[in-house]
Amino acid sequence: MNYLKQKIFGAVKDDLGDIETALEENLTPYVELVHQTASHILFSGGKRLRPLLMVLSARLCGYTGNYDKTFSTIFEYLHAATLLHDDLVDGAKLRRGKPVAHSIWGSPVAVLVGDFLLSRSLSIGTETGRLKIIKVIAETTENMSQGEIHQLTRKGNIDLSESEYLEIIRRKTAVLIEGACRTGALIADAATEEEAGLSAYGFNLGMAFQMADDLLDYTSDTGSLGKEIGADLKEGKLTLPVIRSLKAATPEDRTWIETILANKDFSLRGFEKLRDMLDAYGGLDYTRNKAIKYVSDAKAAISVFARSETKEILLNIADYALERDA
Amino acid sequence: MNYLKQKIFGAVKDDLGDIETALEENLTPYVELVHQTASHILFSGGKRLRPLLMVLSARLCGYTGNYDKTFSTIFEYLHAATLLHDDLVDGAKLRRGKPVAHSIWGSPVAVLVGDFLLSRSLSIGTETGRLKIIKVIAETTENMSQGEIHQLTRKGNIDLSESEYLEIIRRKTAVLIEGACRTGALIADAATEEEAGLSAYGFNLGMAFQMADDLLDYTSDTGSLGKEIGADLKEGKLTLPVIRSLKAATPEDRTWIETILANKDFSLRGFEKLRDMLDAYGGLDYTRNKAIKYVSDAKAAISVFARSETKEILLNIADYALERDA
Repeated sequence: MNYLKQKIFGAVKDDLGDIETALEENLTPYVELVHQTASHILFSGGKRLRPLLMVLSARLCGYTGNYDKTFSTIFEYLHAATLLHDDLVDGAKLRRGKPVAHSIWGSPVAVLVGDFLLSRSLSIGTETGRLKIIKVIAETTENMSQGEIHQLTRKGNIDLSESEYLEIIRRKTAVLIEGACRTGALIADAATEEEAGLSAYGFNLGMAFQMADDLLDYTSDTGSLGKEIGADLKEGKLTLPVIRSLKAATPEDRTWIETILANKDFSLRGFEKLRDMLDAYGGLDYTRNKAIKYVSDAKAAISVFARSETKEILLNIADYALERDA
Repeated sequence: MNYLKQKIFGAVKDDLGDIETALEENLTPYVELVHQTASHILFSGGKRLRPLLMVLSARLCGYTGNYDKTFSTIFEYLHAATLLHDDLVDGAKLRRGKPVAHSIWGSPVAVLVGDFLLSRSLSIGTETGRLKIIKVIAETTENMSQGEIHQLTRKGNIDLSESEYLEIIRRKTAVLIEGACRTGALIADAATEEEAGLSAYGFNLGMAFQMADDLLDYTSDTGSLGKEIGADLKEGKLTLPVIRSLKAATPEDRTWIETILANKDFSLRGFEKLRDMLDAYGGLDYTRNKAIKYVSDAKAAISVFARSETKEILLNIADYALERDA
């Protein structure tokens, strides 16, 4: 574990424990199969980033109530719901090193348990008594489903532009993290500029996280990543490292990448060739630099808050976005 | 068109027109494929029962605002979302005589457009400004997904009990119709007993509608039903006409029904034999009588309201539940 990770984990250990308990306690399905399937996706080593960010955001805004952990489950349930549906949509095989739910229980169960988790998240949302939080959930779901469809309609298309890519990851990832941070501010009755600051922090962090994730697909190995090597490209998904490299690529290299995208398959050797290409054409560096900019914007966004232990953790999490290895 | 249907349609023609417009106007997706797929399920001859019931319930409680049609789309979008997912889960082929969405655009699109419709319904729900209405949406979704999973886990099982069947249709159908009626009362700021009366009306009507639907599967033909003959049994779904008949069946007939359930296939001749069996063993009559009781309970539930044109329509709709032929 690297230093930053250790520092963050040390500071939020108790919070993570409480979040884990809350995730267990608030699931409450009446059908055993729902419990089983939901637990498979929920308790398989997720980082709990979204609920944690909600809890920390609330604390930063002075929240002293007892419901922050309960409310934070909204964002993990919502996240798990979309993972269930997205894995199905993407035809993914592994998540966090384990077979995906639909490969164990079948697509129908994955669809319905996703719906169930979404509705749990919504039910807990109503318990906050804040319509603004429900709006966050509604808008997040609307954005995520459309972002995923947008991505789906462009699958295997070599002409995906950088701005389209940004639009897709905004909807698919950033909006949810933004919503978690914003909800923390909302349950703490924060001032408008605090709410705006935390929203911007979440949005920028989300963008950085997704880019780091897209980089990991090319810079990590299956062991630590917990999914197939080069899974994105195999699924026909063009991400920024490839999009950027294609701009600079020779016609020959472009054709080679196009072939991979069309065949959805490559050997380890082919993968290494691709990785070298993304490196040589600067796609990896370009993406890393973009992510660095988002991290710095995230950190700047919470300058409205005075220095505190909680703020320090949020700043560390932002930095960690780029350092993580899985 | 029978007399009752004509009477109802005559009385609500303008409302149905307005609901249609609202359904078009509130969809607002940004991806064209979402619009196409959502329109396929939304504008294919649905009866608009749920939005209509919301509008009529609001009117019965004295609502005079301008947003009843907009808010009523919540229940058609929610309904369409579950149809998209359920058709996928059930492996259905036809709906209202047209190929189901997932057979045209594939399962991924059906899953995601279902999610989108659910989130649209939620977004419009937040526009009501009433947390109680959001609760209705959350509870409905929770119930429907679990009801559907419950049904799924019992698929092909000959031992499904009548009480399990009632639990499943309550969650799958009655809760949504109950929610539509209740929401009508809520937006009209109705008195508690009016809200309770309309909720009970909706619940009982929903139970009756589902039973009538389950009867139609054995008493109608593909032409008017718009789906395959005996589709329920082919999908491994035991409904009340069969459940009741099995109780009285000879071991020989029971085995014959079990074989159909296991093979998921039968000829027209086999279907006629089955129908005769359900008739002879009283399963059809038993179901019809149960449905009649629910209709009468639905009508009794709104006795709290004075006589009015709107109440008359709601009473007619209850009666129509048993008379419809598709």
